[in-house]
Amino acid sequence: MSTTDISHDNSVFDNLNTLQASLEQGVLHITLNRPKARNAMSLEMVKELSTLFATAEQRPDLRAIVLRGAAGHFCAGGDIKDMASARGSSPKRDDGTEDPFFTLNRAFGRMLCQVQSARQVVVVITEGATLGGGFGLACVSDVAITAADAQFGLPETGLGLPPAQIAPFVVKRIGLTQARRLALLGARFDGQEAQRLGIAHYVCASDQEIAETLTTVLSQIKRCAPDANAMTKMLLLNTLESPLESVLDLGAEQFAQAARSPEATEGAMAFIQKRQPKWAE
Amino acid sequence: MSTTDISHDNSVFDNLNTLQASLEQGVLHITLNRPKARNAMSLEMVKELSTLFATAEQRPDLRAIVLRGAAGHFCAGGDIKDMASARGSSPKRDDGTEDPFFTLNRAFGRMLCQVQSARQVVVVITEGATLGGGFGLACVSDVAITAADAQFGLPETGLGLPPAQIAPFVVKRIGLTQARRLALLGARFDGQEAQRLGIAHYVCASDQEIAETLTTVLSQIKRCAPDANAMTKMLLLNTLESPLESVLDLGAEQFAQAARSPEATEGAMAFIQKRQPKWAE
Amino acid sequence: MSTTDISHDNSVFDNLNTLQASLEQGVLHITLNRPKARNAMSLEMVKELSTLFATAEQRPDLRAIVLRGAAGHFCAGGDIKDMASARGSSPKRDDGTEDPFFTLNRAFGRMLCQVQSARQVVVVITEGATLGGGFGLACVSDVAITAADAQFGLPETGLGLPPAQIAPFVVKRIGLTQARRLALLGARFDGQEAQRLGIAHYVCASDQEIAETLTTVLSQIKRCAPDANAMTKMLLLNTLESPLESVLDLGAEQFAQAARSPEATEGAMAFIQKRQPKWAE
Repeated sequence: MSTTDISHDNSVFDNLNTLQASLEQGVLHITLNRPKARNAMSLEMVKELSTLFATAEQRPDLRAIVLRGAAGHFCAGGDIKDMASARGSSPKRDDGTEDPFFTLNRAFGRMLCQVQSARQVVVVITEGATLGGGFGLACVSDVAITAADAQFGLPETGLGLPPAQIAPFVVKRIGLTQARRLALLGARFDGQEAQRLGIAHYVCASDQEIAETLTTVLSQIKRCAPDANAMTKMLLLNTLESPLESVLDLGAEQFAQAARSPEATEGAMAFIQKRQPKWAE
Repeated sequence: MSTTDISHDNSVFDNLNTLQASLEQGVLHITLNRPKARNAMSLEMVKELSTLFATAEQRPDLRAIVLRGAAGHFCAGGDIKDMASARGSSPKRDDGTEDPFFTLNRAFGRMLCQVQSARQVVVVITEGATLGGGFGLACVSDVAITAADAQFGLPETGLGLPPAQIAPFVVKRIGLTQARRLALLGARFDGQEAQRLGIAHYVCASDQEIAETLTTVLSQIKRCAPDANAMTKMLLLNTLESPLESVLDLGAEQFAQAARSPEATEGAMAFIQKRQPKWAE
Repeated sequence: MSTTDISHDNSVFDNLNTLQASLEQGVLHITLNRPKARNAMSLEMVKELSTLFATAEQRPDLRAIVLRGAAGHFCAGGDIKDMASARGSSPKRDDGTEDPFFTLNRAFGRMLCQVQSARQVVVVITEGATLGGGFGLACVSDVAITAADAQFGLPETGLGLPPAQIAPFVVKRIGLTQARRLALLGARFDGQEAQRLGIAHYVCASDQEIAETLTTVLSQIKRCAPDANAMTKMLLLNTLESPLESVLDLGAEQFAQAARSPEATEGAMAFIQKRQPKWAE
């Protein structure tokens, strides 16, 4: 229940090229930090995010991960230089290696899967450009707080490309009906519409309101037990992948395991004693 | 098309410990009746509900089942005494029997599946506490009428437990995007928000409005043919479990069967003669 | 990128009995044209629609298909004469052929699958009666524009029949929670409610507003690259049928293929040169 365990090696959070990361009271704050490119998602950024989420997976002391962009934008989509580099290379090689376009695209999808299934609660704060891959990243969050004037969109098809890796996450986020309209019309919309469509949960009119909403959300997360939350997230995601009966069997196994854990004992004691459980402190 | 067929043995609806049940014009009204515990879902209540729904499955004369809680609350979640009893018993036994926590939890999920797939149209009326398991029960209804000031919530993770059996039904009800936020933040919300999230269909400001809405809903149900409605419900639920082509094949088989049934003949005759079909009387 | 390629044989768009079809600047406009029957979906209409969509599948020069009904109605559902004809024939035959009711119903579902997966963006304009099968047809569109006073509904169960072929498409369109209520109550509702439920994307108060909305939508479609749009639509639909990892693998393959196509080259050039891509002209 400690916030940052001093026995952990935190050096992985330093020396990042495309991100900034900091630990604060059990919360990992990550800033997408390529402001000149409106934080476009380069392959290097994908790799650095992937490393951070792999590290967080081993850190049950971390309760939440907050993703935000530097300088007023969340993420403007894929990186043009990476695309140019892939275009300059051969699609098929004699040694059977992948087309660099495939590699580039698939690595991004693999990172989205990691974020989607992170044991921590993932909060995104979307401001300014939230386009293409940035839009996809918002779609795998547990909680999305948006600036009212953020600019969401799926510009890929206008450039002759499909929004390939984000497609399943967009459909899971907002349903097929809106996903097909947005993708096939290259639609642009703001934070208010993002909430109406079910992409964002909270719309904020100012930086101050974003900060207050984040504080409230993090406080609510901390009142939930860490292991129970991680287990719950796994169970919720599993409902989309497995048949109902096996989802329910797994659920009952997890429930029995949780019910015999120190967390549930503390939860029951705190409830009876009408006090906050230790993990909320 | 008769309401309560006198040839049926209705004694199953009497002598219930945790429920009250009554038959009225083809509608089975069930009241969760443990008012001192805000109708918390005990294992005994699960078993009694399961018996009633198993009985209803054999009763095509029953058109709808209405679930409501006694004394202004729907259901405050799992029962604390059952939990204490399970905690006091051994998790693993030499004879290979289940952990009592597993048994307790899984029995609840099994009952939710029964309610979900009941051949009757299931209507819930949510008032006051609609928490945890009670929230899950609302999520398997066909029609949900809520008091504006009902208190919905998923308090499990705050107690160190996952909302294990209700997870798949919550995701089916409101989608992954809202389910993950509500569960991982231990969110509380009222009837207005429940409608906005898609949990409830109708929000009522008073007992009077609830009564009127229920009357309208039951009247609409009765205008639909009993067998066609049961078949439709099965087909709708099946769409989530089977591949599209087999869903459509089964649909066409069911359609052909229905089209050659006395119900469809009566439906066509009533339509031509501009009168109500017999089942609506 | 040309609008109507003169090398194509367009005679399939003439001599239709139940439809009117016209080509205009790369858009195929189809009018359901049985105004005396409020454009009820006869087996002949199903076959003619199926032929048109099969033709369109071979016509990448066509960017969008617009479906509308003649004389102020979209489509009032199945055709009564077809039903009467099927009822007059034997359900089981010695030669093992299908029950005509099965054939009739399944043919409609097969056509819905064609419309659902058309490579073009499918736009429907719903006015007046949009019932049963007409409601189902609206549910497989990519973009739905509705008149505010359109009358939507699922009258099937009131006639003793299940909405068998449209069930999966309605659930995909608006989710199980609303689909079960609408079908089991035989609900009727207008265009405003259709938008709230997620069936329609745009609600219009007048013919003039419908015309303007259609112009805007078609213009947005044309700014998206034709092949990228067709690929995107396939990927979005695939997310509901396949496991996540294979969806992402296929996505990356399609992305690499698109990225090396002339479309993506033109898209990148237009972006750099700050001009409209050729396909938008």
